[in-house]
Order: sequence, then structure tokens, then C-alpha cells
Amino acid sequence: MKNKTLVVALGGNAILQADEEGTYREQLSNVQKAVAEIVNLIKEGYRVVITHGNGPQVGNLYIQNSLAGEVVPPMPFDVCSAESQGLIGYFIQQEMQNELAKNDIHIPVVTFITQVLVESDDPAFKNPTKPIGPFHNKREADLLGQKTSFVMKEDSNRRWRRVIPSPRPISIVEKEIIKKSIADGCIVIAAGGGGIPVIKKGKELIGIEAVIDKDLSACCLGIDINAEILLILTDIEKVALNYNTSDQKWIDRMSLEEAKRYLEQGHFKEGSMKPKIEAGVRFLENGGERSIIGSLLSASSAVKDSSGTTITL
Amino acid sequence: MKNKTLVVALGGNAILQADEEGTYREQLSNVQKAVAEIVNLIKEGYRVVITHGNGPQVGNLYIQNSLAGEVVPPMPFDVCSAESQGLIGYFIQQEMQNELAKNDIHIPVVTFITQVLVESDDPAFKNPTKPIGPFHNKREADLLGQKTSFVMKEDSNRRWRRVIPSPRPISIVEKEIIKKSIADGCIVIAAGGGGIPVIKKGKELIGIEAVIDKDLSACCLGIDINAEILLILTDIEKVALNYNTSDQKWIDRMSLEEAKRYLEQGHFKEGSMKPKIEAGVRFLENGGERSIIGSLLSASSAVKDSSGTTITL
Repeated sequence: MKNKTLVVALGGNAILQADEEGTYREQLSNVQKAVAEIVNLIKEGYRVVITHGNGPQVGNLYIQNSLAGEVVPPMPFDVCSAESQGLIGYFIQQEMQNELAKNDIHIPVVTFITQVLVESDDPAFKNPTKPIGPFHNKREADLLGQKTSFVMKEDSNRRWRRVIPSPRPISIVEKEIIKKSIADGCIVIAAGGGGIPVIKKGKELIGIEAVIDKDLSACCLGIDINAEILLILTDIEKVALNYNTSDQKWIDRMSLEEAKRYLEQGHFKEGSMKPKIEAGVRFLENGGERSIIGSLLSASSAVKDSSGTTITL
Repeated sequence: MKNKTLVVALGGNAILQADEEGTYREQLSNVQKAVAEIVNLIKEGYRVVITHGNGPQVGNLYIQNSLAGEVVPPMPFDVCSAESQGLIGYFIQQEMQNELAKNDIHIPVVTFITQVLVESDDPAFKNPTKPIGPFHNKREADLLGQKTSFVMKEDSNRRWRRVIPSPRPISIVEKEIIKKSIADGCIVIAAGGGGIPVIKKGKELIGIEAVIDKDLSACCLGIDINAEILLILTDIEKVALNYNTSDQKWIDRMSLEEAKRYLEQGHFKEGSMKPKIEAGVRFLENGGERSIIGSLLSASSAVKDSSGTTITL
């Protein structure tokens, strides 16, 4: 029997946590814990592809670009995204190599710089929604809006931030080589931060200032490489219905139909649990066997069905 | 006959030139010109591995880290180097994919995040020589020296800069997978910026604040993957003896023995032409067939021997 291929998506917020400063050591230590869990899955024979978010990290790169903007020409957001793939890929790759070495497992680990194709007429380009970078007051926001092509939006606390489009991923540009590397027995790190968003103009790829939801990209990656399992790791143990109400109910398992119904009923929060469930559903509708959502620190038990929430056909 | 494998090393200064601001567009346009030349080599049947410098780019990342240091925890230099592999790798990968598509050539292009092993007792750690980041006056330099563990050194113009060690590369950590990808017919981009420097402590890899000369890493990569040709591209057409004197003499070809003699005689400038010749010599002494030094804009004619300087056994 062919070993199953499992796409693991690590939350960027789980690597650089909200209550942390975001130093090198903190990030490396969080990655180390996640990687130790993933090595358990490798020991059980799964072929593993790791993808990851980059919210806090690319936010930091963007702030560095802004604050140094008078001295160093700021890079557009697709380039910041490429930088974050180098940054986080390096952390995961090195920690994975070290954890494997500690366990006397000899499997190569590779990080691919990965572009993800989006449609140039995706409706997201007309309605940017993804906030990036620092908070501003109204005066600063107006000034930025005038001086640049930035779209600025107010949040619920009367703070303003730049927003950029979040188009849907269509396909992973480097999918063939990723597939080949997994077949060759490598552990692959790819499509970090949702991938570098590119559009196609004729035969040409062009980077664009946007950010793709990393869970939807993880799903797209899973479909493109014919993975059997999609494992989305975050900072919660399980998915809940009626979250944060007196009716709250944790879910261990749900069917594809149930998941779709709950989505329609609006149980899951936009930009948080909703894209994870959507990714899980889309994965199953396109050839996947199981989608699992669980905690970064219990990846291996989530795959064994003893923690997390599993969606099956 | 097996097609020959050629390692091309692009100068970071050729991608972000001294008289340029360093914008995204400028860098992309320089990369595009270099890539068009390299595609000529691919059409002739060479298997190509691209590596690149990152001097100006990682310098900019370092300045961004410094200037935003009160808001975002600065990353150590090995992490900046990983970021620069994402940044420049993305530029080269995308331009290469576009140039191949324009020529109706279907070959996958991959960028690997690459670590390079150095010895923890390399003498460079006791004598840091590689200047990085912004220039300071003496007062600022003293302050930085007191507040941090930075080593500061004065240059010939009484300006001070931080210096970090430049150890010799021992081996490319990801060499096996790079070799495999080339054998599979991919165009590989690897060991950017000289590679992310790591030392080994027991079985564990640990990133260190250092920078490896990219020409020496290109040579190390060439040896590790059994390449036949090392092509070092820079902003000059040929190597010269007695450079910048009335006795100046351009060289078309030299033997390994001649190259070694010229090195001993001190013909080549430290940190500039010297490491390129050293890399060329070391490559031939370890199984390489030809080392070529030439201009970024005439890569294909340099390989045909009609420009550049060739060193052979």
C-alpha cells in the first residue's frame, strides 16, 4: 500500500504568538514543538508536506519596509511574501532536519519558493479586505491614502490599516516538482504564507500585491499533489458550533454535508475558523479523504482521531 | 553523452547595481537580462544550477532590521540571509520561468532554501572581516560596540561598519536533493548569498551570524554536485594581470598552474577578483573541468570561449 500523503498547515500565529515579542529564539522554539509532533507522523509512515501561514512575520517585514522606506526602497507585498518563505522555511527546515537527526531518520527536507496563481479578475481585487502592517489614526490614514495607492480601512476600534486583496488560489505554480519530491521521499515545505500571489498575462507570470489565505492555499496544494489528508493546525483543540455562546458544542467528527450546512448557518468566524472549514470542505470535494482541524501541539493524536475535528466524506 | 552541468554564480552587485536605487523593477530588469543569457546555455543543452550573491540586498534587509529595531525584534544575520534567498530566488525563478515560457521550453525551475556548513573553529570567527550594514562615525561605532556584541571596524575613509566573520564553506547541507533535481532535469537556484551559514554541534545544525563568500560557495556547490563547469558572472568582461597599471594585461585563458602562480604573485584584489580566481582554482583541483569568469551580459559567449577568462587543467 502506498503511504498516504498529508498536507500540514501551520498557523503563522502559532509560530509567532500574540503574547510574544517575536524574537528569533521564540519562533524557533515554537517551530521546534510543532516539528516534534510532525516527526511522529513521519515515523508512522505518512509522506508529509508542510505549509505555513506568515501573518505576523510578513507584517513585521512590511513594518520594517515602511520604517526604513526613506533609506531602502520598500519592496511590494509579493516580494515580502517571498522573503517570509525564506525566513519561516529556514526555521522549519532546520528544526525538522535536527529533529530527524535526533531520531536517526534520514530523509531530505526541502523548502521551495512557491508561487500561487490567482485570477486577474478575482472579485477580491475590487474589494481588498486583508489588513496588513501597522495601525494608523484617521489623519495618518488619509495622508497615506493620498500619498500612495494604498486602500485604507477602519476597523471596529476606529483604527485604520492598509488592506490588500485576498484572491482565491487557482493552482500552485511549482506543483509538479513538489509532487515529484514527495514521490522521491522528501519532506517538502511549500506555499508558505499562502504562496506568492501571481497572475498570468499571456505566458508571463507577474507578482501582485495580495495575500492568499494560507488554509485555502493548503487545500489547493493538497488537491494539486493528490494528497489524501489535509491537517490544519492552529491554537485551538477542536471546532465548535455556536462558539462562545451558552449553546457551544465541540465537534469531534462531521460529514462533508454537515460541514457545508454549518458553514451556511454561519457558525464559523470570517478570517478565522471559516476559511479552515471551507478549505476542509473544498479538499474533500476534490478528491481528498479526510480534513482535520486541530491544535499545533497535538498533530499526531489529531490524525489518530483522538483529538481535533475530522471532516470525512 | 550526458549533458554537462554548469554552476552559474551571479553577482549580487550585478542584480542591484551600485548606481541604482535598488527598487523592485530595477532588480527584476537586471535579473531578466542575466536570465536571457542563461537560457541560451539551456538551449545548448547544459544543465544549469544558478547561485547568486546577496551583498546589496542583505545589506538592505539588515538596514531595515536596524531601523525598525525598536518595533520589530531584529533577526540575526543567518535569518536575513534566508530572507534574501527568498527575495532573490523569487526574482530569478519567476524571470527564468517567463523566459523559458517565451521560448516554449518546458523545464521546471526551483529555488531551494540552502544551508552551508562551516567549521565552528574556522579562523574567521576570531577575525571578522566582512563589513555589513550602514556606515557610522566613531562615536556611533563605539556606542554600538558597547551596547551590542558587534565588532566594529574602521575603513580607509574613517568610517566605521560592523564586521562579521566570513568562514570557508565545507559542504552544502542540501546537496543530495539539489543533485537529484538536476538529474531530474530541473533548473535549480540554490545556495543564494553564499548559503545560510550553519555549524554542527553533535547532530544539530545551528545558524550563525556570518557570511560565506558566494564564489567559494558556488565552487563548493559545483564540487558537491559533480558539475563540470563553474561560470562566475560579474560586471567585468575578463580577468586582468597588473590590473589598473600601465602593464595591465587581459587574460583569455590560463592553466590551473598559471592561475595559482598569479594568485601567489598577488595580482587579484581581496574580496573582489581574488575569491573568484580562488574558487575557480579550487573547483578544478576537485574534479571540475573548466572555470570561467566573465560578464553577466555575455554568459553564453563566455562558455563558448569567445569572451571572459577560462581556467582549465
